[in-house]
Amino acid sequence: MSTEGSARVYFFGAGPGDPELLTLKAHALLRSADLVLHDDLVPPAIVSLAGPRAMSVNVGKRCGVKRITQPEINRLMIASARRGESVVRLKSGDPGIFGRLAEELDALEAAEVAFEIVPGVTAGIGAAAALGVSLTDRRKSSRLVIVSGHHASEKQPEQPTDWAGLAREDTTLVIYMPGRDLAKISRELLRAGLPAATPSVVVSRATTPDQHEIVTTLGELGTVAGVKAPSILLIGRALERAGARASSVASQFENGEIIVGRGFSHDISSENF
Amino acid sequence: MSTEGSARVYFFGAGPGDPELLTLKAHALLRSADLVLHDDLVPPAIVSLAGPRAMSVNVGKRCGVKRITQPEINRLMIASARRGESVVRLKSGDPGIFGRLAEELDALEAAEVAFEIVPGVTAGIGAAAALGVSLTDRRKSSRLVIVSGHHASEKQPEQPTDWAGLAREDTTLVIYMPGRDLAKISRELLRAGLPAATPSVVVSRATTPDQHEIVTTLGELGTVAGVKAPSILLIGRALERAGARASSVASQFENGEIIVGRGFSHDISSENF
Repeated sequence: MSTEGSARVYFFGAGPGDPELLTLKAHALLRSADLVLHDDLVPPAIVSLAGPRAMSVNVGKRCGVKRITQPEINRLMIASARRGESVVRLKSGDPGIFGRLAEELDALEAAEVAFEIVPGVTAGIGAAAALGVSLTDRRKSSRLVIVSGHHASEKQPEQPTDWAGLAREDTTLVIYMPGRDLAKISRELLRAGLPAATPSVVVSRATTPDQHEIVTTLGELGTVAGVKAPSILLIGRALERAGARASSVASQFENGEIIVGRGFSHDISSENF
Repeated sequence: MSTEGSARVYFFGAGPGDPELLTLKAHALLRSADLVLHDDLVPPAIVSLAGPRAMSVNVGKRCGVKRITQPEINRLMIASARRGESVVRLKSGDPGIFGRLAEELDALEAAEVAFEIVPGVTAGIGAAAALGVSLTDRRKSSRLVIVSGHHASEKQPEQPTDWAGLAREDTTLVIYMPGRDLAKISRELLRAGLPAATPSVVVSRATTPDQHEIVTTLGELGTVAGVKAPSILLIGRALERAGARASSVASQFENGEIIVGRGFSHDISSENF
């Protein structure tokens, strides 16, 4: 089920956006794939790296509408693998972090189809590198917590969010797909005791030519608008460096935000989750 | 300070162990480097990928003894970059997670030497992929928490560990460098209320030919011994799959552990932290 030669379905992440952040292994598998099933957020520049014999299918949802269902994705993977083809299931970032990987592995195991997971650079790690910061810093942050906007915004009411557990000064908090819930996230973390001055950065399209960053504080985070998807939110003292660096580069917006990067737009996000 | 052409010191991670898990960008930078300063845990197979003109220096500590001090590392990086050389500072995993990156960035900023951080596959993500599990699973785990053994074992007594915050059933907990503190970690998490049946896996040398895994439960974790460094500890319901998979492969040890993989040894760890 692991690195044996029988593996036929390869799960891997496209990384945070920059095609150069694919692993050597993922790149080689993409070049030799017969079938590539990719999510909507995978950049075209990465999908286009698939070899000439590969058929590429976008199986993601767009504007919240899935054009192909999960059982259909599973059937495609299984049928192709059983024909002896090399199947790549390409997700964004790392497949094992908010990639709904577990459900697809269950389907393959039930069908007794072998698979291999190839780890990748997850979006939060890519964003931190692009900001020039370390996610942990033994002088400031000894814990890294990764949650999704779904979780933070309590879209699953049966699992109320433990805000106190997230609002720790010794923690770097990375929220994937924060969407339009920045005001709620700010309010809840402030209420749970995190200082208003805590550095907070929203990064859109990290590691791509369209990357832009909004460097602000937890207290001002609720006023941030017009974030392009996909985005990621990083909060904590380890982000102090991002603020220092960004303020020396650009300070054209002064309403509590400093905006750096090309292509910033005030379009409302169409983040698809 | 970022992707500008002036960047001269490149910080990147070697990934979790397998040379094929280097990113395309890291591989290219390694090939064209003039000076490679690498930590002790970076596998020789990766250091040897440096190009023919590169001078490679092991600047890590071995058996707890640093052969070259941090100020000396900083001076080497700065002097080489100022000569116009391409300097690679190569750490294991991702440089921004428990890599003491922030201190080195501070030194470069003080010296006004440009740098770029290239993100990599961090050890916990590599280990999960090698186990065939997803770190998050919306049915079981909506939060990923990464801490170091230093943190978990309270080697910094001024920052007592918030065990209750770590002992959550909706969390996948990944502990880097757990070292010899498995019994203490198990005891504290049990006392904080995490069920004894919670799946727990110790992975040594993940993604390398020497990888071995000990699949156990939180209740039995304290009895595990002889873990080879470097290792990583993963705890949480998302690891249930690792248990299911491993038990079908090998069950030669029955004292609460199932041991899978080649080269398992009862040598005491010489983990260097």
